[in-house]
Amino acid sequence: LFKKRKKIVIIIIKMEVMQVLHMNNGEGETSYAKNSNIQRKIISVTNSRLKEAILNIMCNNNNNKNVPESIGVADLGCSSGPNTLMVVSEIINIIDETSRKSGISFPELRISLNDLPGNDFNDIFRSLPSFFHKVKEEKGAENCYVVGVPGSFYGRLFPQKSMHFVHSSSSLHWLSQVPLGLGTNNAMSSLNKGKLYISHTSPSDVINAYVSQFQNDFSTFLRSRSPEIVPGGRMLLSLMGRSSIDPTIEDGCYYQWELLANALSNLVSKGQVEEEKIDSFNAPYYAPCPEEVKIAVENEGSFMIDRIETFEIEWDANVSSNSSDDKILLSRGQQVAKTIRAVVESMVENHFGNEIMDDLFSVYGDLVDDYIYRKKAVYVNLVVSLKRKE
Amino acid sequence: LFKKRKKIVIIIIKMEVMQVLHMNNGEGETSYAKNSNIQRKIISVTNSRLKEAILNIMCNNNNNKNVPESIGVADLGCSSGPNTLMVVSEIINIIDETSRKSGISFPELRISLNDLPGNDFNDIFRSLPSFFHKVKEEKGAENCYVVGVPGSFYGRLFPQKSMHFVHSSSSLHWLSQVPLGLGTNNAMSSLNKGKLYISHTSPSDVINAYVSQFQNDFSTFLRSRSPEIVPGGRMLLSLMGRSSIDPTIEDGCYYQWELLANALSNLVSKGQVEEEKIDSFNAPYYAPCPEEVKIAVENEGSFMIDRIETFEIEWDANVSSNSSDDKILLSRGQQVAKTIRAVVESMVENHFGNEIMDDLFSVYGDLVDDYIYRKKAVYVNLVVSLKRKE
Repeated sequence: LFKKRKKIVIIIIKMEVMQVLHMNNGEGETSYAKNSNIQRKIISVTNSRLKEAILNIMCNNNNNKNVPESIGVADLGCSSGPNTLMVVSEIINIIDETSRKSGISFPELRISLNDLPGNDFNDIFRSLPSFFHKVKEEKGAENCYVVGVPGSFYGRLFPQKSMHFVHSSSSLHWLSQVPLGLGTNNAMSSLNKGKLYISHTSPSDVINAYVSQFQNDFSTFLRSRSPEIVPGGRMLLSLMGRSSIDPTIEDGCYYQWELLANALSNLVSKGQVEEEKIDSFNAPYYAPCPEEVKIAVENEGSFMIDRIETFEIEWDANVSSNSSDDKILLSRGQQVAKTIRAVVESMVENHFGNEIMDDLFSVYGDLVDDYIYRKKAVYVNLVVSLKRKE
Repeated sequence: LFKKRKKIVIIIIKMEVMQVLHMNNGEGETSYAKNSNIQRKIISVTNSRLKEAILNIMCNNNNNKNVPESIGVADLGCSSGPNTLMVVSEIINIIDETSRKSGISFPELRISLNDLPGNDFNDIFRSLPSFFHKVKEEKGAENCYVVGVPGSFYGRLFPQKSMHFVHSSSSLHWLSQVPLGLGTNNAMSSLNKGKLYISHTSPSDVINAYVSQFQNDFSTFLRSRSPEIVPGGRMLLSLMGRSSIDPTIEDGCYYQWELLANALSNLVSKGQVEEEKIDSFNAPYYAPCPEEVKIAVENEGSFMIDRIETFEIEWDANVSSNSSDDKILLSRGQQVAKTIRAVVESMVENHFGNEIMDDLFSVYGDLVDDYIYRKKAVYVNLVVSLKRKE
């Protein structure tokens, strides 16, 4: 009975992340569409790896050097906004270029865009007709089929052996749920007092809960993809990560959460937030080190790691490219706050309420200003290129 | 040059239907979700044919009596609201029942939900997790994959030979465009003065334009499906139609448009609508007779007609089933007006402006009341069951 009840609780927690988490919708000031330059930059940096992976599929498939007649590709955590079609566009470009060089016509291309059901698929779908009109004119790619696939990538998404290439950028650092035991309303919630994620003060129980949730989730992810990808197929995954083994070292893996906790504490002192609310919030997020990814891949067993790399990207990397528009009026910290807000607001708002969002991210922006003045603030990104064993 | 320009004009007109036409979104009083009982009834009536088609796929596929390992099904013009998942649910039930009887496990089922890009896919996607949680619990159907496919069915939608069964209900009476020559701003627009569709006063040029647009569109539809469906695969199509060869006979195929034209004329007399606006609107709609469908199928050549049937459904067939809620306060005519409004408003509003919609459908309701008092007002529905030649 206890086990059954535990299962139900887990389903409810999972359903909650599934229903709550989404990038900010629409095209307003705080939307993800307008505040996703960092993620765009990350996609650009990994572009050479994207090319490598697709070339590999087109030229070495099943070792017989034939281009597959029909290629299945998926983007997991596609979100909505300019980045979604940028990835699709890149993939089409690479396939087009390779086909031309090989003197063959553009193969049938099945593109699956996946995200949680709360994602704004309508927005993507409404921009597709003009996008594909252009693609067909320019590339003669008559054979592209795009579908939207709502669902969690911590579970099966696609039919058996239907995918040749699976891509995911800036998504896999989201866990399927708040680590077991750290959820709301239970004894352990006070363990991570005043924090939203792992911090240098976190007790080992908190760290262990996060570490094992990541191992569980990442294994589930690999196990779900394994039957979906053809032998020799590829995955290219980029996600927030860290360089050091120790997750409590301030090397760029958690300080954005630390400052958000500080901003919330600031609102506690103003009477806008109850202290217990902070204690009971833990982000369903984990930034792994390369070793942790390797362990999960080896344990699951159906993929080989082709490359695993890390690169740093500055918190305010998107500032310069926006100097021409209205953002120049905002401090660098406020601009960084907007990029974070576009990503985490759905989660934070669900727990703390809508009323405090403007104040929270304003205080947050000030704290970020102060922090980046003192330190070189960077995100560490992991890029993992995997091959499905034959 | 003229040909090129004509092509561009056609693309623009097509793009317009594609961008404008959608059932009323959301869940408000005038939404399609709340006013789609007629379409629900049509789906129920065709249920035995649905069963027939799916049984046929599962038991006679390729004449070797094996159930396919992976079954592709599509619902074209799925819309959003309760009817969307009703069709999916029916299909799953039939497959589940047949599998159990044959003593096999539930096959892999790939479900594609198609509609124009303006459809509210977000609404469908958000209701999928709880729907599939239930399906998996009840049927053990772990193997269902649902995707959203935005695009016009008057063109390719799916990869080569990926479909076993294609379903479409209450959608194929929508043409890809206003019949060529009857568009806005051209000499022929005055040909159909005061009318929105074929009427008993329509000159033969108008009728011919509609007839040939239907033949063109329906052929394009069949030609697009032909490579997508496996040999022996099935289609079940239901659409508005008529019994008589002559499209100007008032047998249930056009009077809903006639009354809408009368309602608009009423607003002309009140100064709310310009008369020319009515002359320049022609519905991208056609209700064919069985013979016309047969001609298109024979000309295209890759399908065989298994059955073609017509049935009548009363305009106010949905009234009784709603007597328990607030609709009882509305007259039968006003209720019928709501069911029509949920379907045509996006088109009508785009041409006549949002301001007059409430007045228009209120006058319309009164005219419908008067009409159904005098006549037995019915829609004629065509149900066509087709088989892809081997």
